[in-house]
Amino acid sequence: METVSENRAFGGVQGVYRHASKATNCDMTFGLFLPEEARDGPVPLLWYLSGLTCTHENAMTKAGAQAWCAEQGIAIVFPDTSPRGEGVADDDAYDLGQGAGFYVNATQDPWAPHFRMWDYIADDLPAVLAENFQLDMDRQAITGHSMGGHGALTLAMNLPDRFKSVSAFAPISNPTASDWGRKQLLAYLGDNEADWAKHDATLMMRDKGFDGPILIDTGTSDQFIDLLKPEALSHAIAERRQQATVRMQPGYDHSYFFVSTFMEDHVSFHAEALYGA
Amino acid sequence: METVSENRAFGGVQGVYRHASKATNCDMTFGLFLPEEARDGPVPLLWYLSGLTCTHENAMTKAGAQAWCAEQGIAIVFPDTSPRGEGVADDDAYDLGQGAGFYVNATQDPWAPHFRMWDYIADDLPAVLAENFQLDMDRQAITGHSMGGHGALTLAMNLPDRFKSVSAFAPISNPTASDWGRKQLLAYLGDNEADWAKHDATLMMRDKGFDGPILIDTGTSDQFIDLLKPEALSHAIAERRQQATVRMQPGYDHSYFFVSTFMEDHVSFHAEALYGA
Repeated sequence: METVSENRAFGGVQGVYRHASKATNCDMTFGLFLPEEARDGPVPLLWYLSGLTCTHENAMTKAGAQAWCAEQGIAIVFPDTSPRGEGVADDDAYDLGQGAGFYVNATQDPWAPHFRMWDYIADDLPAVLAENFQLDMDRQAITGHSMGGHGALTLAMNLPDRFKSVSAFAPISNPTASDWGRKQLLAYLGDNEADWAKHDATLMMRDKGFDGPILIDTGTSDQFIDLLKPEALSHAIAERRQQATVRMQPGYDHSYFFVSTFMEDHVSFHAEALYGA
Repeated sequence: METVSENRAFGGVQGVYRHASKATNCDMTFGLFLPEEARDGPVPLLWYLSGLTCTHENAMTKAGAQAWCAEQGIAIVFPDTSPRGEGVADDDAYDLGQGAGFYVNATQDPWAPHFRMWDYIADDLPAVLAENFQLDMDRQAITGHSMGGHGALTLAMNLPDRFKSVSAFAPISNPTASDWGRKQLLAYLGDNEADWAKHDATLMMRDKGFDGPILIDTGTSDQFIDLLKPEALSHAIAERRQQATVRMQPGYDHSYFFVSTFMEDHVSFHAEALYGA
């Protein structure tokens, strides 16, 4: 693992690191904020999965999360959204290929050799983090925005006992029924829709649910709300009697102005789960 | 004035607007965050002047100021750092021309026709803001980063009674004695160094000072600290017995990670001056 940069921030360190990933078979870059407390011993870890077109950098610079993570003594990691670099397949569309990994393991060409973001987030990056930083891997939580909200919810429900809590900002909530989902799941996973189900938060909620608290915020003026389908996931949550807070935030859109507005609430929510556990 | 965008944020609105400026003789773009309280009547206004290479957008998306301004019920405006567009002179260097207006009125060619950022910030933009928004122009404060810290300090000292308080993040503090200053002041104002004095915070501090509180933060690991010369301004402040808090922040650099870390302190500092007045 190589250090790209380290900046002092909120009493801790905002770092950017690069490593050779076995999962994606290419170099991957991630951001990690460590609060001051990490000097003295392991701290809990919050994952932030980003949305379409983002790299590790967008949320790291625009979501305002470090202030609240510093206050709570929690680390936060900002992974990239796809493999990148020479020899990695891509597509002209913003919503397929690089920047649009959708947190799945692709089985179809030309994506299969590198687009294994599920394994990257579930196995590969956790191992790198545990080895190199003062992190308490028994206390992890996960959040994300848009495509990253989809990733956070599906990872949390598919990996029981991994995350104490899960939250999401404007998540893609029912991708098997949306143009933000069907196109990508077909391209990455092929046409057997049974293989798609574990990557749909609404279907996972119907099937398994989550053993812990959930917080979801979506703006009522989100310009992509018809693609996000919050109504499908809200219905499944209520039907399951799943412990959750689902908020429709009046007038907010899909931007980082929305994300940063509610970041304090999300970090506090996760802190309660991480420190209460 | 034309609305470029408006996003709901922290209970208020983060807008971006464009207008034809008489001062710079071209279209200018600025960001303005209005807190919820502006719906009911005029709110105090904090100016944030940005540094070299920035537009109106950098601080608006990376400084995390809106959270604290919302908490305090204060508006914050993010002006651009220079004129821009077709027919506006420029230079290949990052530190001259577009993105590097230095908050002066240029008298030298090719800069004189458009590079009048002093008049833009002192007269033109205030008139546009007063006309179009619910702002209490009797309660203004000013801050800025790097070149913008220089602008904030020199405007505040040159316009007595305009600003209740002034602060700066890593300001260019003594430009008449620095490579971040001499080059630009010569290019914009010509070789009569007497004309440069009002644009040097250290010289202004020696000459006039500021009738109100000052807060200045600089990181001890700032990679540009030799160009900033905080020691010159600190000396002048102490010599004058000027009311001020000057902090050297251990380990912090010149980035927005530094700015965002101390933004809460700066907004609180200004709020006290704005509401106490």
